[in-house]
Amino acid sequence: MKTNLILASASPRRKELLELLQLPFEVIPSMVEEVIDEQLQPAEMVQSLAQQKAESVAKEHQDAFVIGSDTLVVYQNQMLGKPSSEDEAKETLKVLSGNTHEVFTGVSIVHEEKIQTFYEKTAVTFFPLEEKEIEEYVLSGEPMDKAGAYGIQGFGALFVKEIAGDYFSVVGLPIARTSRELMKMGLPDKNTMLKSGTTLL
Amino acid sequence: MKTNLILASASPRRKELLELLQLPFEVIPSMVEEVIDEQLQPAEMVQSLAQQKAESVAKEHQDAFVIGSDTLVVYQNQMLGKPSSEDEAKETLKVLSGNTHEVFTGVSIVHEEKIQTFYEKTAVTFFPLEEKEIEEYVLSGEPMDKAGAYGIQGFGALFVKEIAGDYFSVVGLPIARTSRELMKMGLPDKNTMLKSGTTLL
Repeated sequence: MKTNLILASASPRRKELLELLQLPFEVIPSMVEEVIDEQLQPAEMVQSLAQQKAESVAKEHQDAFVIGSDTLVVYQNQMLGKPSSEDEAKETLKVLSGNTHEVFTGVSIVHEEKIQTFYEKTAVTFFPLEEKEIEEYVLSGEPMDKAGAYGIQGFGALFVKEIAGDYFSVVGLPIARTSRELMKMGLPDKNTMLKSGTTLL
Repeated sequence: MKTNLILASASPRRKELLELLQLPFEVIPSMVEEVIDEQLQPAEMVQSLAQQKAESVAKEHQDAFVIGSDTLVVYQNQMLGKPSSEDEAKETLKVLSGNTHEVFTGVSIVHEEKIQTFYEKTAVTFFPLEEKEIEEYVLSGEPMDKAGAYGIQGFGALFVKEIAGDYFSVVGLPIARTSRELMKMGLPDKNTMLKSGTTLL
């Protein structure tokens, strides 16, 4: 028996989190043209995008367990994706400074005919940031590929006063819940695979 | 001018967090015989231990900024330190399974005549754990040097449903607040040092 686990995301942070499962997996980023329905609420939006990504990769890998994921930062009904410029990154960080925003991460797992899609919402509170902290942080380049223009697992850690919810969801993948959903859908765990002689990939 | 920053802790996790400041520092673990007053509440206990550690190292390094820290896991008024055996680690994890516990981290910064001591309290909720998850995790060796018998930044991440408070405090050091307290006490930041020609260490 051959079992595949596939991460349909190019994010190195998601890859690192999935490695905690100690199972071999492949990274196959989805090339889907994302269809964004502007009417959707954040929770529906991240789930829809996660599912589009998972399904597009699953089409080519019928037997695999395929994980898609999408993260959005929301402050006062405003959705903050990846910044398109350094100026936009600065503006975003000024908005988040001293305030509490929400991070939505949607996850979709597709395996054969089954689809399991869920999301996590985490509140993140920033300390008030000084102008020069923001300037320096943007200069570091860290904000540019990250929703909300910060990485909580990087230098962005220095901005965060507290969170309420799943930390790893803010990093990009709620790994504890994802792991549990994968097992429920029938992904053999490390030991079962060793015993049964199942090979991954 | 020579400015020293010293971490009075042997914890590799605290060292990694302090590196986020991008300032050179020395690790000088405190060798103090910890005086534990069993009457103390967790918040007082971690602050007292953090301060004992910082003060013992500061005595030998008068001009330095010395950081001491201590972490305790508390469940239903029971303080859970580092497990003394694999069996104790398993017992602790069974107690934490499916429940919410609190992590207290005390931090004390000593510089010349000034002492700044504070603590952070973070609530951590575990998913219900299966017996074999606990067995495997203890076999990995990860729980043995950690308060509460788990590392949230390691495979322990797979157990955590949600937290409320500072994630990095659960790892071992509330780095955002520590950074801010250091600046308030007069530690020059990276840029100020570069400009003034101040050398660290």
